[in-house]
Amino acid sequence: MTSKNEIKQELRQQWIETPSWAYGNTGTRFKVYRNPAAARDPYEKIEDAALVHRLTGVAPSVALHIPWDRVDDYATLSKHAAELGMRIGAINPNIFQEDEYRLGSVCHPDPKVRRKATDHLLECVDIAVAVGSPTVSLWFADGTNYPGQDDIRARQDRLAEALRETYAAMPDGVGMLLEYKLFEPGFYTMDVPDWGTSLSHCLALGPKANVLVDTGHHAPGTNIEFIVACLLRLGRLGGFHFNSRFYADDDLLVGAADPYQLFRILSEIVAVGAHRPGSAVAFMLDQCHNIEDKVPAEIRSVMNVQEATAKALLVDREALKAAQQEGDVMGANGVLVDAFSTDVRPLLAELREEMGIDPDPIGAYARSGHAERVRAERAGSTGVGWGG
Amino acid sequence: MTSKNEIKQELRQQWIETPSWAYGNTGTRFKVYRNPAAARDPYEKIEDAALVHRLTGVAPSVALHIPWDRVDDYATLSKHAAELGMRIGAINPNIFQEDEYRLGSVCHPDPKVRRKATDHLLECVDIAVAVGSPTVSLWFADGTNYPGQDDIRARQDRLAEALRETYAAMPDGVGMLLEYKLFEPGFYTMDVPDWGTSLSHCLALGPKANVLVDTGHHAPGTNIEFIVACLLRLGRLGGFHFNSRFYADDDLLVGAADPYQLFRILSEIVAVGAHRPGSAVAFMLDQCHNIEDKVPAEIRSVMNVQEATAKALLVDREALKAAQQEGDVMGANGVLVDAFSTDVRPLLAELREEMGIDPDPIGAYARSGHAERVRAERAGSTGVGWGG
Amino acid sequence: MTSKNEIKQELRQQWIETPSWAYGNTGTRFKVYRNPAAARDPYEKIEDAALVHRLTGVAPSVALHIPWDRVDDYATLSKHAAELGMRIGAINPNIFQEDEYRLGSVCHPDPKVRRKATDHLLECVDIAVAVGSPTVSLWFADGTNYPGQDDIRARQDRLAEALRETYAAMPDGVGMLLEYKLFEPGFYTMDVPDWGTSLSHCLALGPKANVLVDTGHHAPGTNIEFIVACLLRLGRLGGFHFNSRFYADDDLLVGAADPYQLFRILSEIVAVGAHRPGSAVAFMLDQCHNIEDKVPAEIRSVMNVQEATAKALLVDREALKAAQQEGDVMGANGVLVDAFSTDVRPLLAELREEMGIDPDPIGAYARSGHAERVRAERAGSTGVGWGG
Amino acid sequence: MTSKNEIKQELRQQWIETPSWAYGNTGTRFKVYRNPAAARDPYEKIEDAALVHRLTGVAPSVALHIPWDRVDDYATLSKHAAELGMRIGAINPNIFQEDEYRLGSVCHPDPKVRRKATDHLLECVDIAVAVGSPTVSLWFADGTNYPGQDDIRARQDRLAEALRETYAAMPDGVGMLLEYKLFEPGFYTMDVPDWGTSLSHCLALGPKANVLVDTGHHAPGTNIEFIVACLLRLGRLGGFHFNSRFYADDDLLVGAADPYQLFRILSEIVAVGAHRPGSAVAFMLDQCHNIEDKVPAEIRSVMNVQEATAKALLVDREALKAAQQEGDVMGANGVLVDAFSTDVRPLLAELREEMGIDPDPIGAYARSGHAERVRAERAGSTGVGWGG
Repeated sequence: MTSKNEIKQELRQQWIETPSWAYGNTGTRFKVYRNPAAARDPYEKIEDAALVHRLTGVAPSVALHIPWDRVDDYATLSKHAAELGMRIGAINPNIFQEDEYRLGSVCHPDPKVRRKATDHLLECVDIAVAVGSPTVSLWFADGTNYPGQDDIRARQDRLAEALRETYAAMPDGVGMLLEYKLFEPGFYTMDVPDWGTSLSHCLALGPKANVLVDTGHHAPGTNIEFIVACLLRLGRLGGFHFNSRFYADDDLLVGAADPYQLFRILSEIVAVGAHRPGSAVAFMLDQCHNIEDKVPAEIRSVMNVQEATAKALLVDREALKAAQQEGDVMGANGVLVDAFSTDVRPLLAELREEMGIDPDPIGAYARSGHAERVRAERAGSTGVGWGG
Repeated sequence: MTSKNEIKQELRQQWIETPSWAYGNTGTRFKVYRNPAAARDPYEKIEDAALVHRLTGVAPSVALHIPWDRVDDYATLSKHAAELGMRIGAINPNIFQEDEYRLGSVCHPDPKVRRKATDHLLECVDIAVAVGSPTVSLWFADGTNYPGQDDIRARQDRLAEALRETYAAMPDGVGMLLEYKLFEPGFYTMDVPDWGTSLSHCLALGPKANVLVDTGHHAPGTNIEFIVACLLRLGRLGGFHFNSRFYADDDLLVGAADPYQLFRILSEIVAVGAHRPGSAVAFMLDQCHNIEDKVPAEIRSVMNVQEATAKALLVDREALKAAQQEGDVMGANGVLVDAFSTDVRPLLAELREEMGIDPDPIGAYARSGHAERVRAERAGSTGVGWGG
Repeated sequence: MTSKNEIKQELRQQWIETPSWAYGNTGTRFKVYRNPAAARDPYEKIEDAALVHRLTGVAPSVALHIPWDRVDDYATLSKHAAELGMRIGAINPNIFQEDEYRLGSVCHPDPKVRRKATDHLLECVDIAVAVGSPTVSLWFADGTNYPGQDDIRARQDRLAEALRETYAAMPDGVGMLLEYKLFEPGFYTMDVPDWGTSLSHCLALGPKANVLVDTGHHAPGTNIEFIVACLLRLGRLGGFHFNSRFYADDDLLVGAADPYQLFRILSEIVAVGAHRPGSAVAFMLDQCHNIEDKVPAEIRSVMNVQEATAKALLVDREALKAAQQEGDVMGANGVLVDAFSTDVRPLLAELREEMGIDPDPIGAYARSGHAERVRAERAGSTGVGWGG
Repeated sequence: MTSKNEIKQELRQQWIETPSWAYGNTGTRFKVYRNPAAARDPYEKIEDAALVHRLTGVAPSVALHIPWDRVDDYATLSKHAAELGMRIGAINPNIFQEDEYRLGSVCHPDPKVRRKATDHLLECVDIAVAVGSPTVSLWFADGTNYPGQDDIRARQDRLAEALRETYAAMPDGVGMLLEYKLFEPGFYTMDVPDWGTSLSHCLALGPKANVLVDTGHHAPGTNIEFIVACLLRLGRLGGFHFNSRFYADDDLLVGAADPYQLFRILSEIVAVGAHRPGSAVAFMLDQCHNIEDKVPAEIRSVMNVQEATAKALLVDREALKAAQQEGDVMGANGVLVDAFSTDVRPLLAELREEMGIDPDPIGAYARSGHAERVRAERAGSTGVGWGG
């Protein structure tokens, strides 16, 4: 079994990316509740992300969403991040919030709309280069609401074409992630609804295109850790968008709905060392804090991934393998359950102290006065809707 | 078997209510696409609803949503409707779009918020009286996102209290409908998630409180016609919000996702005559036309309910009962399937001609020039979000 | 907060009933794998249940399934149980394994079949009296596979009639539980598919009829703890059939699929003291151990319920209530999560030692030699299928 | 648009394979109800299949399940089929009904079990050659019930190895189909749970391995026609197991649960001509008739696929494409709906008369006296369980 120090060593090097959009206002279709502490622009979002990193020690990068985070000068934004000890992580194009995209973006029946959408993808490749980001992370809101509304195969062909052009434009050092989602905003088809679709496009593109697993984007009952294990076996897992859900794409705090599932996912990751620095697998959060405060929600989420990783590191791999080989059903299951049942909070507190940070990040945040300060500063926010 | 003329006679008297909010802009949490033809205020919404009635002959009332449809003078609004040959139908309170309601309305932990929410319910009772509406139709967006966020039982008690006060305020001739919904916007609990919860509140209130079934508000796999049959047997089905869904509360055109399910629901209705005038069961549409034109979408939806009703009327009830009694599984099923397989479009075209309307309502709409006209008139719409 | 000693005192008195059928062979429709250690008759099943009680200290009764556990002389069976320190728990009629029941039992269109089925229910009331059982626990496999196959409302009426007759025959001291299940073996309707149906029948019967919640019998996404809380508020929760599932009615070990859900259910129970002796809520297991050994599977299941209860007892109810009142979303959630994150295994080991049993029931079972002994003794088992 | 005669010409050539196991007794885990008319051996099953073909005209082959249909002399069996005007279709290995397979077959941790299972696959290749079958159709019941029970990736490796060996043994003219299934009998993982897994194995094997879509094997909400369209686009759709379901793998008559879904699937098929003779896509039924008579159930199922195909052929492809190109959401949907709303029963009756068969196959079956005859002949059946 891995020793406590080895486990801490592994955890110390974990890298969990938070998304800029988690720091702004988000909501449901019924209402975006304004949070007076919500960040108002990319600079403030990076500041909030930097605070999350300072308090947790393992969140040193922040993902951007374009155009929500579009700025005139990316060098300045990148420098701003660096000064706060942060890097810019994945660049996420947004091609669903302009009226032209009502029927799709790169899958739209009209080539002019597709051209515009693909141009935005290419712009995002350029931004990735400009800010030193290793990744362009693609999620397409494309889909249809009614049977017959558009041709499923034709849309796949259009998608493939846009992906090829984007892939071809990517320089060395920039990779592509292709996310899938079962439904929403498309309510009949989504053009990339599942990992089978994403994988088949990635295989057609080449080794720099890989599948992104968003933990909230599956049909009820889907075994996510199975997909993770299969993608790892095929060398095609590009990363995660972590969040949790009870019903659909609820975008709740990761680990809040089913912490045992999160642990099982991390256990597959740890089994092949994909949690380590240098792994090809990106750990990113993607959540909407509709009713809770945003910075502490991200802190808690980072901690939840960290706790699940710690428990996964506690799994006695030799005992597990032995029980599996013997066909000892309950014994093998018991090895996993034992790790999950362990309270890793003391271990993580110890690790944080060794890293020179507060053992209690949530308490430290409360004591920091950040919430009170930004509520005053940002009170005049006029942001409406996502990205506002 | 019912004769063709009897079937037409039944269909001629059908009453399907369209909702004012179907004529305005709606969208998903990702984007509200503006439709230049969307109605801009309650008066225009009633005009659009009246057009749907003129073209279909069976949609003579329109439901309102308060405050989206709040006006200074309800008598004038009611008169406007009457002049267009319409009645005001169900009054739907909206207690989810103000910042105070972030954690709930009548279930909120803070009594001040509950007071405000209940006052809005009472206002809606007054509006119902003012406009001559027979129904206050309640849907609560109340719920929680995280385990422990609030006390489930305490919230039920608060809900019961607000319902009692509202029920007590309802004069003769006004009834209460209580809608349930599995999830959204609450992603952990909804305070009225299923028919069991709705029914138990209605039983506690009295005979004027009945369950409203929204066809998109169930867990995957739920047999809706079973619930309808049980509520009919118990005398507690108050009405429907019709729409359709493939995944969640997709709010697509009724009948668009699973026309056979719609037929089975109507078959339970027709079996007890609950489609007839004077029935206690209200037929209302509740849909969001995010990407399609709104008036034709409502026309098509009314026609879809009408077609399902016509097929339900075609079911040979004696043959069905005989096969059921004999335990003839495939024979009994075959009786239903035969009715569903019948093309009722010619029958409905004939009925429309007898009613003095165009046999092809969708074509008549296209030829009416309405879309072109309102697109020009309403171009300046500044509505944002639902109700805007 | 409750002290450690108080928590142990509560746990010491917990009562978890195991089912006789968990000790025999079970399987899927594809295959019943024979386990050479499976109990062959009611006497052996009670012996196995007694062993589970000896090793866990909190499983002092065993539920019977009739006719699987039919014997000539119930007094002798009851005495056998008493000698082993056990009581006979709930009596479960089985009216789905005779050819007459192909189209239903008490809901069958043929009154002769209904008579036979109701007579079996009455027999089970007599057996309950004979063995001193407090409960007749009803699950009906009745349902239909095809739309139209039978009349939904007529079947409800037939069900109500059989329940009334059975209820009327129940003497003081014997209560009725009415279980619901979404699907299987009926694949279109089940006659009691959800808690709304069960509750409405129980309300019609009287106070001795209450709802039984089987944790594996819900549609995907159903919030079970919400149902539990509502039934507790209404005073109509009769008990549980505990098990767990990833997909459908998988009948896996309770807590094996989602231990956090089990904890949340227990937290609702503990909040109203319904885990205590004298509570009206029965805690019963109902699982199928298709591929794992049966006795250790029941031991582990009892332990899982016990661990979830211990964690539920650790919830700081005052802190929870305070955070809820303040609308502190993450704070309130954090109180629950803190309890769940605690490792209660040491506490339970301590409790067991105080109770004079082995702190490690699974290890104690392995060391007991029971498996080896019964594998030899029971090798000649010819049982086929459930109950065989 | 396609003319009526062209449509009939297409339908005349349709080929729908029925499965031998549909003619024997099947059931749920709770009970296998014996049907006195059920076929008792492979010879009788082929006779029943031949009757279905005689009455429908489009079901000229029958799939076998080994060992349920194992005979000493396959040449004789094949000749028996030919004399009845039938061919032997897909050979389906069964590696889940022996005690060794409790923890899996080709994925089992023990190499001896894997050897035995793979040998059975190789035997089935030999049988396919012996009977002139073009296909070995693989479904693996392999999976696990508990997290940690076995290593997901190791099981994939073992599966890949067995598939490679089997694939290598397949002579020209024999292809492999790889079926996927979300759950059951595995309740935590299945080793081939979805089309992504099946496709990635087929890609690794070569062009003769293709994906089989069983319409009942998906998670709730899965859009099956999307998968069908993607597999067609990739040239990797091998065939169907048709059936229908409301909940899980209910194995009801195809088209009985959602006829509109079946139509949409067939519409994707027809759009690329994959329904035609010479297409690489096999149309097979795979159903369990637990409570209904078996031969008429297969007749009705063949008719349901035929009706869905007829409606798919009625789709006005030019109008559909035009509306799609224009972004006319409701117009495009309307083209599909118009085809679906058409009553094709008269067309099919006409086609049958032209083919020299009774226009009413169900009525013809009733009049044939087959049921009465075989009930007498087969009364002594002692078959128990599937395949018995």
